[in-house]
Amino acid sequence: MATKVEQTTNEVLHFIGNFGASEKPKPIDNKRKLLRRQSTVRDLRWNVKISGFAQKTHNPIRAIVDGLTIVPNPEKKMIALSIGDPTTFGNLLPANEILDAMKKVIDDKNFNGYAPSVGFIEAREAVAEYSAHQGVIKEISAKDVILCSGCSCALDLCIAAIANEGQNILIPKPGFSIYRTLAEGFGIECRSYNLIPEQGWEIDLDHLEELIDENTAAIIVTNPSNPCGSVFSKQHILDILEIAERHYVPIIADEIYEHFVFPGNEYFSMASLSKNVPILSCGGTTKRFLVPGWRLGWIIVHDRHGAFSEVRQGLLNLSARILGPNSLVQGALPAILKNTPQKFYDELVETLQNHANIAYSMLKEIPGLTPIMPQGAMYMMVLLDMKNFPEFHDELDFVQSLVAEQSVFCLPGKCFDIDDFIRIVLTVPKEMIIEACERIQEFCENHYRPPKIDEEIDDLATNFIKITDF
Amino acid sequence: MATKVEQTTNEVLHFIGNFGASEKPKPIDNKRKLLRRQSTVRDLRWNVKISGFAQKTHNPIRAIVDGLTIVPNPEKKMIALSIGDPTTFGNLLPANEILDAMKKVIDDKNFNGYAPSVGFIEAREAVAEYSAHQGVIKEISAKDVILCSGCSCALDLCIAAIANEGQNILIPKPGFSIYRTLAEGFGIECRSYNLIPEQGWEIDLDHLEELIDENTAAIIVTNPSNPCGSVFSKQHILDILEIAERHYVPIIADEIYEHFVFPGNEYFSMASLSKNVPILSCGGTTKRFLVPGWRLGWIIVHDRHGAFSEVRQGLLNLSARILGPNSLVQGALPAILKNTPQKFYDELVETLQNHANIAYSMLKEIPGLTPIMPQGAMYMMVLLDMKNFPEFHDELDFVQSLVAEQSVFCLPGKCFDIDDFIRIVLTVPKEMIIEACERIQEFCENHYRPPKIDEEIDDLATNFIKITDF
Repeated sequence: MATKVEQTTNEVLHFIGNFGASEKPKPIDNKRKLLRRQSTVRDLRWNVKISGFAQKTHNPIRAIVDGLTIVPNPEKKMIALSIGDPTTFGNLLPANEILDAMKKVIDDKNFNGYAPSVGFIEAREAVAEYSAHQGVIKEISAKDVILCSGCSCALDLCIAAIANEGQNILIPKPGFSIYRTLAEGFGIECRSYNLIPEQGWEIDLDHLEELIDENTAAIIVTNPSNPCGSVFSKQHILDILEIAERHYVPIIADEIYEHFVFPGNEYFSMASLSKNVPILSCGGTTKRFLVPGWRLGWIIVHDRHGAFSEVRQGLLNLSARILGPNSLVQGALPAILKNTPQKFYDELVETLQNHANIAYSMLKEIPGLTPIMPQGAMYMMVLLDMKNFPEFHDELDFVQSLVAEQSVFCLPGKCFDIDDFIRIVLTVPKEMIIEACERIQEFCENHYRPPKIDEEIDDLATNFIKITDF
Repeated sequence: MATKVEQTTNEVLHFIGNFGASEKPKPIDNKRKLLRRQSTVRDLRWNVKISGFAQKTHNPIRAIVDGLTIVPNPEKKMIALSIGDPTTFGNLLPANEILDAMKKVIDDKNFNGYAPSVGFIEAREAVAEYSAHQGVIKEISAKDVILCSGCSCALDLCIAAIANEGQNILIPKPGFSIYRTLAEGFGIECRSYNLIPEQGWEIDLDHLEELIDENTAAIIVTNPSNPCGSVFSKQHILDILEIAERHYVPIIADEIYEHFVFPGNEYFSMASLSKNVPILSCGGTTKRFLVPGWRLGWIIVHDRHGAFSEVRQGLLNLSARILGPNSLVQGALPAILKNTPQKFYDELVETLQNHANIAYSMLKEIPGLTPIMPQGAMYMMVLLDMKNFPEFHDELDFVQSLVAEQSVFCLPGKCFDIDDFIRIVLTVPKEMIIEACERIQEFCENHYRPPKIDEEIDDLATNFIKITDF
């Protein structure tokens, strides 16, 4: 029997970054192999080697979280603000129209067989129609759509179709680690371009442009952003496109959070604004429809002037490896995309905005914390003024102690390739957010050491921009 | 509007080898690119290249079938004996227990979220229990099971975890083309070992052993076999294991047709008979449960003396690329594996055996054909005595004419890497099999040219073994 603490720890491990295997992967035990080697020749020969591809494929979030000591305070119930799965706490449920569509397909018994490797034509048509909004996107049709087993699989196909070993792709920093997981196995280099927190996490365009060279196969743009919750303006997207066009670098647009935008902001897809830059858009039902486990993702090939004729063929080739997502979900997809009421989308976004407002207003009053207000998606990044938490070496230390004392777990910024931040998830129930923020407050008040006065003046000056609401 | 003939052709294309995309992939049009190159520099620069991985990933069945002229006789309704999807004609339906399990999971609303990347622990436990039979297999538990998006995805992970570019894997000939589709993108060589039709498609063990060298990363064994319908005896499996053990080559066992064995034959899994050879077994719900589109596959790691410790880690790493199969199917899996009644399995196998008997008894009377009776799975291979069909250059020619005259489509042997055979699928409705065999008879009678008498005597001698029932 697992102890209660172990159980809780396992729950937390399950939650991290959506990847939690139910057991920690064990490091290869070299000592034991050495012992076996000394015993017989056969055992040596039976040491089957891992491939280079598998060895280089890794999950950075797992590696970081596995290195943490996550032992909650047994006096306090665990609150995991770490998991990017909106379904975890049962407070956010898919619309009945979505579930009914699935049950109807099961009753019809017409969708138990194989789909074509790129997906059923009716499902692909439904995706094309669903995406037919805002100018240029109208030009797409079913032939431009490939269905995949979740959005991560869509990203996998795009990266694998477009980049070779020794080439590089540009990825956001902070950003979601799946791009590294998918690319580095192939020996494709991931180069990180900076996002600027003081500018609502817009891309540092100069930095982006500096990173481009003749081996750059694609720019990955995540909008709206995990982990930032930022939503790019029309002008910012045009600026990104201008750079891509100048250097002839295609874009892979990770738009899994499309339309997941708080009222008062507007979402523009990359493709809707691109005249000449060919774009592979990756999306799916994962987040907006609250069914991430269903693994229904898609690629939309936004070709421009035939630039993607080879890549299109490559994606078709690669789809033969996958054979498409679950056929029942494909069968239900047209009904899901057509029948899900606008009210469902609106209420979900309102709930998240409400949670964001609550968390923001509570966290910004806490000494040493600077939350950055999101405009969409399901996350908020919070800057830690580390020098005023002198007990902690870095944000990993901070996160571990927060769990140990307050049983609140957030992913450290390093999981997203950035220091001194923590990411909190906004999909947990409202009362849990409030409780978590109160505990974070208690924790910070216990550990915050006010700067000396002359330091404080400096800080006021440098932090002036940071604390502005975006 | 598509013409009737086009529609029928599309249906056939959809059916071939489970891969039919709804449009033919177009070859890259070099002439058009050349024209564009001459026009502007920008267009040249925007010619985004396909990756080597995507270029080398291919579907041999598609390539062959796309090269065929498939125009059915408009006077006769098309009968496709080509598609390895038992659900196509609606005569074979999943058990109600399977469908009910899915609907219950949807109603419960607890399985919409992400599973761990290797699958929910309960689902993996259920697979371990389901597989816990026959000796050695009892040793496995949930930690040895990785759930995948279909059995092809399971094979993908196994091959990718175990073999490097420049290494080779050994695959059966005739065999299913998915192994090449999965391996060749990585630059892994596929070496084909012969199966011997005169010995019930057993492996030519001498040939298998000849192919092994220091770069052999794995032997893939398909049992029961697609396309042969053969089921290996206990002794034959022991002989294969003996070779693997002598050369320290691990086995990837494609056992998606496990238990799919006609009464009077017995199925042994590779792992149940292996003392020292480490084995990765790939299986799933695809065939036995009549839900291939649901994409629920699994890998069972049958380690032996720790030989797979690195490979196990590799599979864990690679599972982070996939993030598991559809969560609803995972949620339903324990109920599906426990509640599906034995009667359902038995009736399915009886139906297929009945179809096999009908097809065999009809085809063996047809001049120029030598059907080989299967012991399991869903297929029968039929040898064509090509020299007695002098109008046809090869079996591709034969297949095309059979469609053109009789509207019966079978996959040619070349789709499975062997000449002079056709594969027929036994899952179509009984009356369709009978009708198809009658039409094949008419076709053969029209085109068969009896050998001259002295040839005939030779033939009688050489064919004596061939026409023996196995």
